[in-house]
Amino acid sequence: MGQIYQMQMKIPFDMSDVNGNIKIPQLILLSLQVSEMQSESLGISDQDLLEKHQLVWIVTDYEMILHRLPAFGDEIRIETEALSYNRLFCYRRFTIFDRDGEVLVEMLASFVMMNRETRKVQPVDGDLLAPYQSSFDKKVIRGPKYPATEMLEQKEFQIRFYDLDMNGHVNNSKYLDWIFEALGVAFLTSHVPRKINLKYVKEVRSDGTIASCVEREGLVSSHQIRSDAGIHAQAIIEWRKEENHV
Amino acid sequence: MGQIYQMQMKIPFDMSDVNGNIKIPQLILLSLQVSEMQSESLGISDQDLLEKHQLVWIVTDYEMILHRLPAFGDEIRIETEALSYNRLFCYRRFTIFDRDGEVLVEMLASFVMMNRETRKVQPVDGDLLAPYQSSFDKKVIRGPKYPATEMLEQKEFQIRFYDLDMNGHVNNSKYLDWIFEALGVAFLTSHVPRKINLKYVKEVRSDGTIASCVEREGLVSSHQIRSDAGIHAQAIIEWRKEENHV
Repeated sequence: MGQIYQMQMKIPFDMSDVNGNIKIPQLILLSLQVSEMQSESLGISDQDLLEKHQLVWIVTDYEMILHRLPAFGDEIRIETEALSYNRLFCYRRFTIFDRDGEVLVEMLASFVMMNRETRKVQPVDGDLLAPYQSSFDKKVIRGPKYPATEMLEQKEFQIRFYDLDMNGHVNNSKYLDWIFEALGVAFLTSHVPRKINLKYVKEVRSDGTIASCVEREGLVSSHQIRSDAGIHAQAIIEWRKEENHV
Repeated sequence: MGQIYQMQMKIPFDMSDVNGNIKIPQLILLSLQVSEMQSESLGISDQDLLEKHQLVWIVTDYEMILHRLPAFGDEIRIETEALSYNRLFCYRRFTIFDRDGEVLVEMLASFVMMNRETRKVQPVDGDLLAPYQSSFDKKVIRGPKYPATEMLEQKEFQIRFYDLDMNGHVNNSKYLDWIFEALGVAFLTSHVPRKINLKYVKEVRSDGTIASCVEREGLVSSHQIRSDAGIHAQAIIEWRKEENHV
């Protein structure tokens, strides 16, 4: 068991979508903010990591189970815990509760540490992680098999200045934006995800265009984010009909 | 003098741009969150306003003076005050301070109240506003003259699902995204705004495409957000060279 950190908040208007549900990319940004707050409270803030060690945390995989989406005005509690790490990966859970303590969202995220200069993944430094009190466990958690097929339906997006973060990367929440957007407004207004698997393969460069490719069969959609350089991210999403349509 | 409300925070990683500065649309979203928090603390939350009165706050104008942009890791304090109101408009200031109390950003925002059903602006109800203790002042604050010329340089954007808020509107911070983006990554990486005037003319419908038009002369740029339906927003931005280039 690692150290647990929590944040309470109320979903503000601007984080809510047309149906009043939280925007999923926001859910990811909020969760990452909570883990950043934990790191800071433990004396190893992202800023320290960058300035003292030239390291940045990079997310490689998400698995999200969405029992019910928090909606505008809801009070939620986001809890996070660094679970375990192996030679390359650190695993962290996020659990989002409603005000009665019911679990709304469960998320497992895999992180690696990247050297900011070389842009290469570094082996995990156990000493650096000590404050989280997560345990070493050589077991590697593997995501699902993502379809390798060429997907015919696609939407193109130009990389925007505000898609980029301080590392010159496209912020990882943006990929989910593109992935969702490929399904179109009508589908997104009438459906909500109940499970999301997302794998980051390769960073998107700071200019040019990407294609968000999708193949949907009923309530399951498969996704690829592609550019001339190949596949950057893959996702599988299971959907359910939206019942809270405002 | 109206009631004053403050929030303190630290700029997180995901709100920072390539240069480490806060993303300007985020600055607007944060400020609006602070005014929402004030409204809630005074017992007239956005949610109440909507549920009990079918009213939503709509921003019509911003004037921002940016002395220095808050950057990643900076502790800031956002202060807001409902200054005055007249028959149609409510004026609110936002002041952003650094941890030493120095003023980083000054913003004046004009709001109107829209009826959610009719989508029409309603005259201000002084009784509703009483808790803010702002004063009635019939003086209408007018922004600058925006150029009416056709602008030749333009970038097209498709409206995305996540651009929309619960009112089915494009969230007003998105306009600024489009406005900035029209200037291109190279310009945005090497310049920061020092003054922004932004006027919302007409809401953007939930589908289709908009054009972000721009005309730049040296360090001043003029902007229009247009669609087949005409002009939706106008802006004038004064720029300075970015010195904190990371």
